[in-house]
Amino acid sequence: MLPETLEWKQGALKILDQRRLPERVEFLDCRRYEDVADAIRTLAVRGAPAIGIAAAYGVALAAAEDFSHVPDAIEELANTRPTAVNLFWALEKMRGKYRSAPIVDAPRQLLELAKQIHWDDVANNKKIGMAAQELLPARANVITYCNAGALATGGYGTALGVFRAARSAGKKLHIYVNETRPVLQGARLTAWELLQDRFDFTLICDNMSASLMQKKKIDAVVVGADRIAANGDVANKIGTYMLAVLAHHHNVPFYVAAPTSTLDRDLPSGDRIPIEERDPREVRELPGGKIVSPDTPVWNPSFDVTPASLITAIITERGVHRKVDEKKA
Amino acid sequence: MLPETLEWKQGALKILDQRRLPERVEFLDCRRYEDVADAIRTLAVRGAPAIGIAAAYGVALAAAEDFSHVPDAIEELANTRPTAVNLFWALEKMRGKYRSAPIVDAPRQLLELAKQIHWDDVANNKKIGMAAQELLPARANVITYCNAGALATGGYGTALGVFRAARSAGKKLHIYVNETRPVLQGARLTAWELLQDRFDFTLICDNMSASLMQKKKIDAVVVGADRIAANGDVANKIGTYMLAVLAHHHNVPFYVAAPTSTLDRDLPSGDRIPIEERDPREVRELPGGKIVSPDTPVWNPSFDVTPASLITAIITERGVHRKVDEKKA
Repeated sequence: MLPETLEWKQGALKILDQRRLPERVEFLDCRRYEDVADAIRTLAVRGAPAIGIAAAYGVALAAAEDFSHVPDAIEELANTRPTAVNLFWALEKMRGKYRSAPIVDAPRQLLELAKQIHWDDVANNKKIGMAAQELLPARANVITYCNAGALATGGYGTALGVFRAARSAGKKLHIYVNETRPVLQGARLTAWELLQDRFDFTLICDNMSASLMQKKKIDAVVVGADRIAANGDVANKIGTYMLAVLAHHHNVPFYVAAPTSTLDRDLPSGDRIPIEERDPREVRELPGGKIVSPDTPVWNPSFDVTPASLITAIITERGVHRKVDEKKA
Repeated sequence: MLPETLEWKQGALKILDQRRLPERVEFLDCRRYEDVADAIRTLAVRGAPAIGIAAAYGVALAAAEDFSHVPDAIEELANTRPTAVNLFWALEKMRGKYRSAPIVDAPRQLLELAKQIHWDDVANNKKIGMAAQELLPARANVITYCNAGALATGGYGTALGVFRAARSAGKKLHIYVNETRPVLQGARLTAWELLQDRFDFTLICDNMSASLMQKKKIDAVVVGADRIAANGDVANKIGTYMLAVLAHHHNVPFYVAAPTSTLDRDLPSGDRIPIEERDPREVRELPGGKIVSPDTPVWNPSFDVTPASLITAIITERGVHRKVDEKKA
C-alpha cells in the first residue's frame, strides 16, 4: 500500500520524505511555512502538482501562525523552484483568498482552500486517467519517465494515473520505467510506487528506450508535465524531449497527462519557460549502493545496433566511407 | 599524461585497471592467459580494439607457458564477451599463426604478432583521426559516447582519436561527454582521459543530448563501434542508436570511427549481431560517492521543452486535446 504523499494532520502538513525512498518510508512534520519551503527546495516533495499543493498548505500554516506572515510565505514558497507552474498557480489562488477573506476567518478559509486544491488535484487525476486510458490498447507496452505518479501529485498520479485507470478498465500493461538521471526519480520513486501497487514493469537506463522502441512494439509513451505553454509546448524532466523525438521516429504515440493547473496561458511558447539548472554534484556524484529494491525487474543490454541509414559516414584507417550501404566500408 | 592502456613488459601484459578509474591508477600484471580472460570479463580492460589486443597477448602468454595450451586459451578468451568482433578477429589471426609457425619458434612468433596487432591498431587510429578530423569545422561542438579513446584501443583512440587529430590540426573543440549508464564509461573513463589531456569538455547525463542538440549548435556526433555488419549497421554501447536518431532529427552528422578489424563481413546486417545482456545489478546498484573528479565540468538542467509538434495529445481533466497548436488545451 502506498502511503499518502501529502496529508493534513493535527494542524501540520505531513510530507512523505521522497529523498529517503526507496530505502526508508519516513515523514516530515511541517508546522511552519519555512519547513514546507525547505521540503520543496530539497526535493523531499517534488512533482509539479504536489509542490503546488504543498505550497498551498504552507500558506495556510503561515496564516495560522500570524496573518501578517502570509505575503512573506508566498514569496519564499515561490522562490523554491522555477519551472513547474502549478506552484505559482496554487500560490496565486492562495493570494486571492488572502486578499478577499475577512482577517478573522482567513486562517480557516486559507486552510479550506489548500484542502480544496488537494482534493481537486486527486479528482482531476482520476478524470485524466479515465480519458487517457481509452487511448491505450487492451494489451499495451508503455514507456514512462521520471515520476508522474501518486508521489508527484495529491495522489493517484498523472502518467501513472493513466496506467491505474487502464488497469481498472481491465487492460494488461507492461510499463518500462526510465531511471531518470541525475536524481533517479524513475528508479527510486516510480519503480517503488509500481512495486507497491504490483504493476508489471521493467526498469531501464535512460539510454535504453531507443533500443526498446526499435526492438519491441511500444504502444505509447506517457509522461507528466511541469509547465505547458499556450501553444502546447511542454516543459518536463530533462530527457522528456529525447523520448518525444524517439517516439516520433518510431511512430509511437507520445502522450502528456497533466491537470490544467499545469497550463501557463501567459507564455506563448516553450522557449520562454524558465529551466532550472541544478547543482553539478548531482551529476558528479551518485547515491551509493542499491538504488532500488533487489527484486526490481531490469533490462540491461550492453549494446545496440544503429542502422546504416542513420550513419553519415564510417571512418576507418582506409578513409571516409559515406554511403555505407552502397559502397561497403 | 595518460598511462598506457596495455603494455608488454618483462614477459607479462601490464593492463591499466579501468575498474579503478578515476579514483586510482592501478595496473594488473597478467602472466597467464586466464588473467587476461578475467581482465576482459570483468571490464578491467574494455573497448573493442583493446580487448582484441589484450586477447592476442593472452594467446602469446599461453604459448610461452606451454604450446599445447594455445587452443584452450583461444577458446577461453573467445568466451569472455560476445559483441565486439575485434576479439574474434585478433584470435583468428593468432590461431593462423599458431597453425603455421614451427613449434620451436611459435612462442616468439605469436608474441611478435600480438605486438604487431597492437602497433597496427595505434597506427590505424592515427589514420582514422587524420581522415575524420577533416569532417569537423575549425570550431566544433561535438558529442561523444561511452569511451572510444586511448583507453579503448591500443592507444590514441577512435572517436577520441578524431578529436586528438582535430586539435593537432589547430581546431577548437568543445566535447560533450555522455556519462553512459549503467557502467559509466563516459563519466569514469572519457571524462578522466579528457582531463588528463586537457581537452575542453562538459559531462552530461545520457538524457541530456537531445536538449543540447535542440539548444546549441552541435556540429557532429562521433562514436566508436564494437561490430560493423556488411551493410554498415553498427553495434556499439547501448544508447548509441538513441544518439543516431536524435542526430538525424536535428540534422547533425553522425560519424562512426573504427578500424577495419571491427568489420564483420560475414554478417549481412546488424540484426544478426549478438547483443550482450549484463547483470541487472549494474542497473539496480550504483558505485557510491564521487564518480568523477570534482573539477569535472558539468551541465545539469533539470527540465527540457518538447515542442507541441511532437506531442500526439495532451490529456487534462477536461479531456483529450489532440491538436494542441490549433485548439488550445
